[in-house]
Amino acid sequence: MYELSQKFKNLKPSAVREILKATGAPGMIAFAGGSPAVEAFPCDEVKKVTAEILDDDPVSALVYGVSEGYEPLRNTVKNWLKKRENIGTDNDSVIITSGGTQVMDITTRILTSQGDTVICEEPSFIGSLNCFRSHGCRLAGVPIDDDGMNVAALENAVKSNPNAKFIYTIPNFQNPGGTTLSLEKRKQIYNIALKNNLVILEDDPYGNLRVSGEKIPSIKSMDKNGIVIYAGSFSKILAPGIRVAYAVVPDKTAPSFTIGKQVSDVHTGLLNQMIVSKWFDEYDVDMHIKKIRKIYSHKLNLMCECLDKYCSGFITYVRPKGGLFIWAKLPDNVDMLDYVSRLLKRNVAVVPGTAFMIDDEKPCSYIRVNFSTPSDEDIVSGVKIMGETAKIYG
Amino acid sequence: MYELSQKFKNLKPSAVREILKATGAPGMIAFAGGSPAVEAFPCDEVKKVTAEILDDDPVSALVYGVSEGYEPLRNTVKNWLKKRENIGTDNDSVIITSGGTQVMDITTRILTSQGDTVICEEPSFIGSLNCFRSHGCRLAGVPIDDDGMNVAALENAVKSNPNAKFIYTIPNFQNPGGTTLSLEKRKQIYNIALKNNLVILEDDPYGNLRVSGEKIPSIKSMDKNGIVIYAGSFSKILAPGIRVAYAVVPDKTAPSFTIGKQVSDVHTGLLNQMIVSKWFDEYDVDMHIKKIRKIYSHKLNLMCECLDKYCSGFITYVRPKGGLFIWAKLPDNVDMLDYVSRLLKRNVAVVPGTAFMIDDEKPCSYIRVNFSTPSDEDIVSGVKIMGETAKIYG
Repeated sequence: MYELSQKFKNLKPSAVREILKATGAPGMIAFAGGSPAVEAFPCDEVKKVTAEILDDDPVSALVYGVSEGYEPLRNTVKNWLKKRENIGTDNDSVIITSGGTQVMDITTRILTSQGDTVICEEPSFIGSLNCFRSHGCRLAGVPIDDDGMNVAALENAVKSNPNAKFIYTIPNFQNPGGTTLSLEKRKQIYNIALKNNLVILEDDPYGNLRVSGEKIPSIKSMDKNGIVIYAGSFSKILAPGIRVAYAVVPDKTAPSFTIGKQVSDVHTGLLNQMIVSKWFDEYDVDMHIKKIRKIYSHKLNLMCECLDKYCSGFITYVRPKGGLFIWAKLPDNVDMLDYVSRLLKRNVAVVPGTAFMIDDEKPCSYIRVNFSTPSDEDIVSGVKIMGETAKIYG
Repeated sequence: MYELSQKFKNLKPSAVREILKATGAPGMIAFAGGSPAVEAFPCDEVKKVTAEILDDDPVSALVYGVSEGYEPLRNTVKNWLKKRENIGTDNDSVIITSGGTQVMDITTRILTSQGDTVICEEPSFIGSLNCFRSHGCRLAGVPIDDDGMNVAALENAVKSNPNAKFIYTIPNFQNPGGTTLSLEKRKQIYNIALKNNLVILEDDPYGNLRVSGEKIPSIKSMDKNGIVIYAGSFSKILAPGIRVAYAVVPDKTAPSFTIGKQVSDVHTGLLNQMIVSKWFDEYDVDMHIKKIRKIYSHKLNLMCECLDKYCSGFITYVRPKGGLFIWAKLPDNVDMLDYVSRLLKRNVAVVPGTAFMIDDEKPCSYIRVNFSTPSDEDIVSGVKIMGETAKIYG
């Protein structure tokens, strides 16, 4: 009988994945997901622009498109990013992808060979870590402080991994850590990458979901040397089911990135791309972002209030300035997986912190709690159950 | 400065790719593409079901979905394939992908390691060949006869490539060869794969576009041993811009295939999947296929008539029984690339046969001519120009 490749055998279902499966059961209070708030979807706007596209020019939405993406959307995103974030130079290309994860996938494909190393924050987004692993890459984790990646540890990781090809970072409201990389550290990391011939893969799905504090310039906005690939997405500001995201890619890498896109899925659905493009044409996206931030601000405040009220003395956390998640620490003497299982039995689903670690067998006292998906009622009753369940540990 | 991975350096633009670029210029007679006929798109049906989805339940189309695909569509495809093609057993899973190429991509990812070999027909679809290459795979080509893959050559390729992991075949109306694998050879290839612990990747985007002859059972329909991954697509029977395709995957491989999908793009757009699902619910897809076959039959007949009238003595070909392409042979003394360039200058775009070869520097006297994209007028005037241009060679 045939065998699977070694790199996929290593991706076998773990204890954590079994817990994750159970979190989707009906009646579950959904603190485990990473979905944006449903009430933030501009449903009527999507409906209107979709109808217009299929009324005016259905064939254009149904034929094959080019791998780089739908030209009007590429231009719109390019101008929007320049104006809003000062991202992109004449030596960068915007390439449309099918969701943000595809940027990680294509980047890994074009920059690494099997056995190469990716340097990443630890903890980090499980989807990206598995993506890197699926290409046969080793992961070198760098711990995070309250202001993002620990720079001394990063320098060590770079030194001890001569076959590292890129540094992966989620600079804003990190998943799961909730931390934001300081400006000073962004500059330091850029210089470390430059000095060591490394690419930076800057994954920024949450940057627009800031609810407090001042915006910090992206690493890509400092990229005079063409070493940063920036991943942005419409999953969190429009809707994830649309599966439209984008990469800003330096010239050196853009032709290969395009081939990488072509061999992955030829191109992103044209109807999907045209919906986003027309949404920009007909609506004020910046205003929409302002509006949905209020939703997230409210939900984050409510979640923090409840944690402080019901879980004080048990759970500690650094309040994030945006994003979707709270990275909550349990007391050192508590068995985190036991706590998570007990919550599950009471229909509250959170993600065990081990899921975001490079070695998910190592002990970890964190859980990730999502505040964007649940309703206000669920936030209150879910955190109450978290507090009640904590009492078992005395 | 950082470097690209070796496997991507090998995918550098070739002379062929430069010609391909030019084929998209405006005013060009499009014999180079692979698009289905625009008049075959059910535009009104897509418009109607899309409006219903966004009227009735927009949120379901906009949230995150599961990586395996939208459950109602998976079930519909499963039942449809069973009834129509006798494909799939209790030990198979249907997994929805973003276009057919993604099936090749995920299969390569989960079955091969860098340096492994993929056995494929030669010539074969350039998109799939580049996909295999992008994972660092070597290609071992097997020549095709009029009834598909040469079995003796396949046995040799298997023997001389102990690190081969799967056999890639397009059994129906092969791209670009136009040939259809005979029933006898399907059985032989299945047994060769079984004996040698190889998977068969059966890529069948064109099977529904048969215009003459009897349907031949797919290799997957004989798969009692769970060694065939079958790739089907809605690109050619509904519309390619929708980017919805599917894989039928044996149990042994399905969990890894799902992870491969997850790390590629999380899931295929939900609106896209719901459009296809509702299209099945509200319309008679088998009847639609019958209808569009008439379009293809007409176009193929017209193209063959013209070739026989204007290019007789210069171009020879085996008339395909379906699909989108004619694989046309030039006289041995004609410089194929010179002929293709001369056609381009006269605004007729065909694909040089070298594009479909494993080594695209080797001489090749074939061109691929597409009959599904051009209008009737363009077919007539384009082939006329092909005939006039041929006269240069005396």
